Parts: sequence; structure tokens; C-alpha cells
Amino acid sequence: MAESMRWSEGFIAVDWGTTNRRAYVVDASGKPGAEFEDSKGVLSVPKDDFPAAVAEIRERLGDKPLLMAGMVGSNRGWMDAPYVPTPAGLDELAHALVWPGKREAIVPGVSYVGNGRADVMRGEEVQLLGAIARGDIDQNALVCHPGTHNKWTLVHRGQITSFQTVMTGELFNLLKQHSILCDLMQGEVTPNESFRAGARHGWANDDLMAELFSVRARVILKQAPAEDPASYASGLLIGNDVRIGLSTPYAAQVVVMGRPELTCLYAAAIEEAGRAAIELDGEQSFVAGISKIAEVM
Amino acid sequence: MAESMRWSEGFIAVDWGTTNRRAYVVDASGKPGAEFEDSKGVLSVPKDDFPAAVAEIRERLGDKPLLMAGMVGSNRGWMDAPYVPTPAGLDELAHALVWPGKREAIVPGVSYVGNGRADVMRGEEVQLLGAIARGDIDQNALVCHPGTHNKWTLVHRGQITSFQTVMTGELFNLLKQHSILCDLMQGEVTPNESFRAGARHGWANDDLMAELFSVRARVILKQAPAEDPASYASGLLIGNDVRIGLSTPYAAQVVVMGRPELTCLYAAAIEEAGRAAIELDGEQSFVAGISKIAEVM
Repeated sequence: MAESMRWSEGFIAVDWGTTNRRAYVVDASGKPGAEFEDSKGVLSVPKDDFPAAVAEIRERLGDKPLLMAGMVGSNRGWMDAPYVPTPAGLDELAHALVWPGKREAIVPGVSYVGNGRADVMRGEEVQLLGAIARGDIDQNALVCHPGTHNKWTLVHRGQITSFQTVMTGELFNLLKQHSILCDLMQGEVTPNESFRAGARHGWANDDLMAELFSVRARVILKQAPAEDPASYASGLLIGNDVRIGLSTPYAAQVVVMGRPELTCLYAAAIEEAGRAAIELDGEQSFVAGISKIAEVM
Repeated sequence: MAESMRWSEGFIAVDWGTTNRRAYVVDASGKPGAEFEDSKGVLSVPKDDFPAAVAEIRERLGDKPLLMAGMVGSNRGWMDAPYVPTPAGLDELAHALVWPGKREAIVPGVSYVGNGRADVMRGEEVQLLGAIARGDIDQNALVCHPGTHNKWTLVHRGQITSFQTVMTGELFNLLKQHSILCDLMQGEVTPNESFRAGARHGWANDDLMAELFSVRARVILKQAPAEDPASYASGLLIGNDVRIGLSTPYAAQVVVMGRPELTCLYAAAIEEAGRAAIELDGEQSFVAGISKIAEVM
């Protein structure tokens, strides 16, 4: 495609999520240059206003083609980019771009159907496949991707073969904001001994929605004066998540990628489950993944 | 106690919860008479306003002594009535009343500490022990008490020996009101085939926070067009709850007591788990329990 060949002169990569967006200039060699992040996530942009929101990106980073990924390709975003089914690698994504304009393309998400389950991801796939392209993740691995909805992805021969979403981050936020536990959950969460005790309980037991109430009862009955309830509850939720994630068939390598403040918690919980995990920052991987897509599209 | 002997002339029983209250006139024979229910739960009554809130009850039902149970005895209620530890029966409750006034008494809740757990109940104990006093529940039974916080109580020789709270009702409400699943969960929940399929999944599997996301993914991917997502999600949560409840050592008899619209769901989920449950309406049991306390106090 003549149009896309010109992208080898450089383009703007946008990781456009639900509540914020991050844009990077990527030069011909795939190296990131200028960038910015703001809170113009897809939920704050009415459907008809995407051309204006894109013009604003170009005002800040230059008049270049745009390659976007994330919720911008959902039915709440600019244009619905249908999910690519597993197994999926960068080539499959590059061949399924949707084009809201001549110089604007959106990378689709990935879907999984199998074992009586269904699942979807949108955004994580670019980071994950980018990290594989960089050699940061093995060709066979189990990758944990924490966030509002944590994803456990099985990678086989460099492709996404299956994945499972666990609503851990969202549940933590619901409990912290709206539940009877909210007073107890305002403290900062760190991977301290309370966190690890919670993670061990969540990993070894199958009683999440009961043990959460026990956190409150112990405080009322003064049974755990030294316990840090926010960290314990977070450990419990993440330990339960790890119990689900490590129950899938998995490769020798376990990777946790994403924001460092979250990967350190998951790495600690995985350690309490008797495994070791490699931590990876997702940001560099995003640029690597989207540059590969720009090369092959 | 001379004061309490006069209560045999009749009194007003109040089931005073977090968000509403129900008051009954009980005559000398323990039979309920006039009653009313309103939304003056303890959260809507400032601490200093309880005498006025009680006066209002007497204006409607007569100038009789008051015997109250429920959250009115919590630290957010009129006066904190310290929990009675298990094992607990009606006698233990009757001997631990607190008296905010000469003619007003509050029944305490029950606490459990053991097996590395802690738990509290306040309100359910009167219904439950009342049902045992009436002969509606055997002297040895496992009693499920659905609500915002479902209680699984083990009854041995007519006493509460241990119990476990599962935050199922609260989680359902959080998901319905605030989560990414809220659009899917607005429908009416009935014990239909979708509910039962969810209950079977929740009973047999240990992946609640993942399967909940799968409900949404199946809708997005059009994998389950016939599924009723609100009922399926409710079945999943209640099936998971039953998985926790039936994992405790339990007696031959399983009873579900409470509001009929909830007990029918739990009875269906328990059936899917291969057990049969007796359903009991909690209201009559409350009057029976509190009348027994008035007799022996």
C-alpha cells in the first residue's frame, strides 16, 4: 500500500485507553521521540470529535500519520476494529487494521473462545507482542498483565494462543470506593508482610468473598491489631488472581508486565505461590510492538 | 428483675437494621399484633435522636417496653451491645442485653473466632434461634441466611457454634451499580436455566472473578445469545457462595432462611450442588426468638 510505505518516514503511535491517552513520535528506525500523555481517554471524546482530538495530537507532535491501539478501536471509541481471534501475532494484527481516515489506522484487539470460555483484550496485545519482538519475553511464556482487568496470556511460539481476564483491579476499586470495607482500604498498598499473608491466603484458599469480610470482623473484634488491612485485602485479591492464573497450563517463564507499582505486587504474590516472575515495564514494549506493525502493514 | 417481669404484660419488638426497621406489638402469650415497617434504619438516625425515634414507635404502637435487635446495637446505632461469643443460644443473648433506658433493651450480636477466621453477626441470630425455638430448624443444622452479607451458621444442640459471612449480596450490588458489567445486570433475576447454569459453574469452579468477565466477553463476541446475563451472574455468585458454605462441616439438615425472593435463589443453587434445602421465612422466626428472650431475661 503506497500510503503505508510512507509511514516508514516516521509516524505517531497512540496508546488510547478508556481514561487517558499517550502519544509518541516514532522515527524511521522505530525509536521514540517526543511524547505526551493526557486524560483525553475515549470516554471523554464524543464519537464525532475524534478528528478534532487527532488534529490536536498533530499540533503537538507534527503532521504525521497516526497508528493507534487500545479502546479507541472499541464500540465506544472512534471506529470499531473487530477482534482478531487467537492464535494471533503482530502479522495478524497488522493485516486487520481499520482505517477511520487515509492517514489514521487502528490496531484491533484479540478475542479468545475455547474451553467453555470467551474473552477479549484491547491494548495489552501490542505491549505483549512488542516485548516478544524485543526478546524481553520468551517465545513460550505465561504473561500476567495487571490493571483494572488483569490478563493472563499464554504465549506459544511467539503468538497469543489463549488468555483469561480476572477483574481484580476493578473489584479492589469497587471495594475501596463503595463497600462496607472502604474505611479499611484507604491506606497505601505495599508488598509488606500483611500483603504477603493475604496473598498466601488467596493462593491457598477458595473463599475470597468470605475472607474479605473476615478482614473487617478481625478489626471489630481486635483480633489482628498489627494487620495492615488495605495491603492484606489487596494481597488476598491478587493471591486469588494468581491462583486462577497459575491454574492454566503454563510455560517455564512467568512474566508480569505493566506499571511498576502493580507488577511489584503481582511478582510478590507469585513468589508466595512458589514461582518466580520477571517484571517488565509495558511502555517501551508498546512502542516496539506498534513499530513492528507499522513495518509490516 | 422487677422491671423485666412487667414485660410479660406485652412489649414492642423492633428488628432495627441498617436501612430500615420493623416493629411489632407482642402480647403476653408471645403472639404478634399490630406492626409497621419504615425506612428509619440506624444510618438515618443521628445517635442523639434515638429517644425521639423510639418515642415515635410508641406513638404508633402504644406505650410499652421495647426490645430491639440488629444494627441498633452496633457502634453506629443507639448503644454498642458487645458481641456474645459462640457457642451462643437465646439464654446467652438474654443475659447480655444492654439498656439504653429503663424500658428499652438491645439484644447483642454474636461473634466467632476460630480456624484462623473471625466473624460477626447482628440481627440474624434472633431469627435463627427463634426458628429453632419454634421447632422449624433441627437442633443440628447448617443454616444459610442470605442478604447483603450471607451467613452460613452451624447449629449444634440448638446453639450457634460457628458461622461464616460471604459478601455475595454486596458484591452483586456493587457489580450492578458501578462495574463494567452494570448494563448486563439490570434484568430481573429468577432461578431460571441461566441462573442454574451460573450456579453450577460457581459451585464446580474456583474462578469467580474471571468467569464474571467472561459473561461480558460472551455478549461482545455473540457466544451466548440465549443467556440471561443478570440471572447467570447472580447464579455464579450464589453458586460460589454455596461452594464456600457447603465446604464447612455440616449437618444433615440444610435450611435457607430470609426473604422468599432470596431464599428461592439459594435453594435452587444448593439443589444444583446436589443437596436439598428447606426454605423458611425469617419474619415469624424473629418474633418467636425475641419473645423467648423477653421470657428469660
